[in-house]
Amino acid sequence: MPKPALSRRALNTPPSPIRKLAPLAARAKKAGIHVYKLNIGQPDIESPEEYFEGLRLFKDKVVAYEESQGNEKLCRVWSKYINRTLGIDTRPEQFIITVGASEALVFAFMSCCDPGDEIIIFDPTYANYLGFASISGTSLVPVLCRMEDNFALPERGRIEEKITGRTRAVLICSPNNPTGTVCSKEELGLLFDLCEERNLFLIVDETYREFVYEDFEPFSILNLEGKSDRVIVIDSLSKRFSLCGARVGCLLTSNEEVLASALKIAQARLAAPTISQFASAHMLENIRDGFLEGVRNEFRIRRDALYAALKEIPGVVAHKPQGAFYTVVQLPVPDADDFASYMLEEFSYNGKTTFIAPAAGFYMQNSQGLQQARFAYVLNKNDIDEAIEAIAAGLESYSKR
Amino acid sequence: MPKPALSRRALNTPPSPIRKLAPLAARAKKAGIHVYKLNIGQPDIESPEEYFEGLRLFKDKVVAYEESQGNEKLCRVWSKYINRTLGIDTRPEQFIITVGASEALVFAFMSCCDPGDEIIIFDPTYANYLGFASISGTSLVPVLCRMEDNFALPERGRIEEKITGRTRAVLICSPNNPTGTVCSKEELGLLFDLCEERNLFLIVDETYREFVYEDFEPFSILNLEGKSDRVIVIDSLSKRFSLCGARVGCLLTSNEEVLASALKIAQARLAAPTISQFASAHMLENIRDGFLEGVRNEFRIRRDALYAALKEIPGVVAHKPQGAFYTVVQLPVPDADDFASYMLEEFSYNGKTTFIAPAAGFYMQNSQGLQQARFAYVLNKNDIDEAIEAIAAGLESYSKR
Repeated sequence: MPKPALSRRALNTPPSPIRKLAPLAARAKKAGIHVYKLNIGQPDIESPEEYFEGLRLFKDKVVAYEESQGNEKLCRVWSKYINRTLGIDTRPEQFIITVGASEALVFAFMSCCDPGDEIIIFDPTYANYLGFASISGTSLVPVLCRMEDNFALPERGRIEEKITGRTRAVLICSPNNPTGTVCSKEELGLLFDLCEERNLFLIVDETYREFVYEDFEPFSILNLEGKSDRVIVIDSLSKRFSLCGARVGCLLTSNEEVLASALKIAQARLAAPTISQFASAHMLENIRDGFLEGVRNEFRIRRDALYAALKEIPGVVAHKPQGAFYTVVQLPVPDADDFASYMLEEFSYNGKTTFIAPAAGFYMQNSQGLQQARFAYVLNKNDIDEAIEAIAAGLESYSKR
Repeated sequence: MPKPALSRRALNTPPSPIRKLAPLAARAKKAGIHVYKLNIGQPDIESPEEYFEGLRLFKDKVVAYEESQGNEKLCRVWSKYINRTLGIDTRPEQFIITVGASEALVFAFMSCCDPGDEIIIFDPTYANYLGFASISGTSLVPVLCRMEDNFALPERGRIEEKITGRTRAVLICSPNNPTGTVCSKEELGLLFDLCEERNLFLIVDETYREFVYEDFEPFSILNLEGKSDRVIVIDSLSKRFSLCGARVGCLLTSNEEVLASALKIAQARLAAPTISQFASAHMLENIRDGFLEGVRNEFRIRRDALYAALKEIPGVVAHKPQGAFYTVVQLPVPDADDFASYMLEEFSYNGKTTFIAPAAGFYMQNSQGLQQARFAYVLNKNDIDEAIEAIAAGLESYSKR
């Protein structure tokens, strides 16, 4: 008998560039080598005790479905949290709680776009956007951000020339994954004006909002244009509270049509996890003062350590990232993917090696970024020092093969 | 400024027929009326202590991302559980853990179908299938199951005539939501043969597998055709273990291409919730003997009570459901939707009323089922008796308006 064929979209969905080298890392680990994981945005920061406390406070005898829109208290305290930290006035009704930012992005893509419609993104981009586009049948149209500009927003004309009759939205992630670049208020304002003129949605992924360093303060598109019907904010507890596995995110907008549409899609999948939402609501209500400042300071220390160490390696081109906990670095190798595999398959330094994410998978225009890799500074300073020492030794050994 | 328009698919996604009357119920409750909720498949059975124990055993300091495929132990113990209860030999590698059966169905639709491709389903159908179809751009093609046949599988010719060049799969839910009908081995075999001849996927939603009464034993398509590349099983802990809010389901197949495709989609959304998977694995490994038998007996008692009470109401046509915990009932009213609203908005009986789900939303062919409603027997016998008493009184009062 013939076998039934997979759909084209299944075949065309790209595998995650962050996760595809994982089997090599598993093998290295099995062989007794310690692997420093700078490849994935999984911080080693302890999740807040307030979340675990929330888990313990769940006393229902039945783990029942939560409301499709999300736990009512969680919407309320998340709204309060945002209002307090940003000095704005969102309402709980503007929130739809999702299974991580991932699901919020899928809801946003589906609400804004029919199959074949286009969303403008910035290249290099968070690789999973490509997966959400594939799932929703949306076409992503990249505008290149250049390493020599520290991946800053390109000038307006370079964005505008990508707008077609099928463009429905502009999507930006700031602070940025994978580059660590932060959009200034002026740049966000420029993007909004463009969307206003061309009648597009502006989707802002603010997953890393609090992780800004130097002169930056946490800042949201909602500070500029919180009442606009074209603004959709994507948010998540994953990084801010080191709760990647809690899978709690949200879609936040003033646009009631988008909320109604997202709610219909949310109803089809019934609800996000009940106990994790319950614990998140308790945590957001009770989180101790200074928790986030502590985490931000820790990431600043790590960033400084990473940047200082990378600068010392001959041939490496690195910028000081302004936010999030990533940076894209140019390596003195023709193919960073091959080098990343080499680090896991053939190399170790004092029984240790480092796992980095080749940047090619973050670029839609594939000729870009072949020599680049994303480093996530999610380990403590000491581990980062040792991880970069291994990279330096690895580069030397790689060049002599 | 003009407002950016929603996508057509957002506008076309149907609201959940189960959830749309919820505001009326909330109002009745606010007015001090006790509402018996037979409208939704949320059992009042206590979740197993073994799940809560699993929650308490989670000791990691960081709630990190789980693997995209799912918690390794959960795949292993779920496979063992299925092998033990069905006498078959699945392997953990055949599982992808999902956020409830909902996500598993979306993964299956996306893996089998490109936008515009067709899946044959049976009418009345689980209403959320329509939502998944809308999300994935798949067209559902209904084959009518008739109330006078107790919603049994129609004869082969009536299914076959719906197959077109774009048909990619047949989807059946057995034991069935909303009808409570169970497919016999012979009927499942017939469906499989048809799929084999016409080279289609056969997707079987076995969420209610253990909830069969009378002469039936829990039975899976895997008992018949577990090694076939065209079989995709959807499963969930939600109903079996009264864990609707845990959001733990799975996709299970021998087809490695489907597994690889579903894994790519799974990678885009990163992972299912970490702690809920951890607790589920502990529960499945340690669940006490007799838990499921106890739950099944309880549902049998409720079913009998519901059926006996419904039979006594003049003009009501009810069949004895063979499985799950639903039944579709014909009411002596021209429009069950209007009657369901009446029960919530205008009626109460000794301070009580009953919330039922109008069946029209479960039918794709909308002229069907206008007089029908789905009853979920998810409350204890006493509550069911009182709920049906209120329905009987409500019907009488409704007819006299």
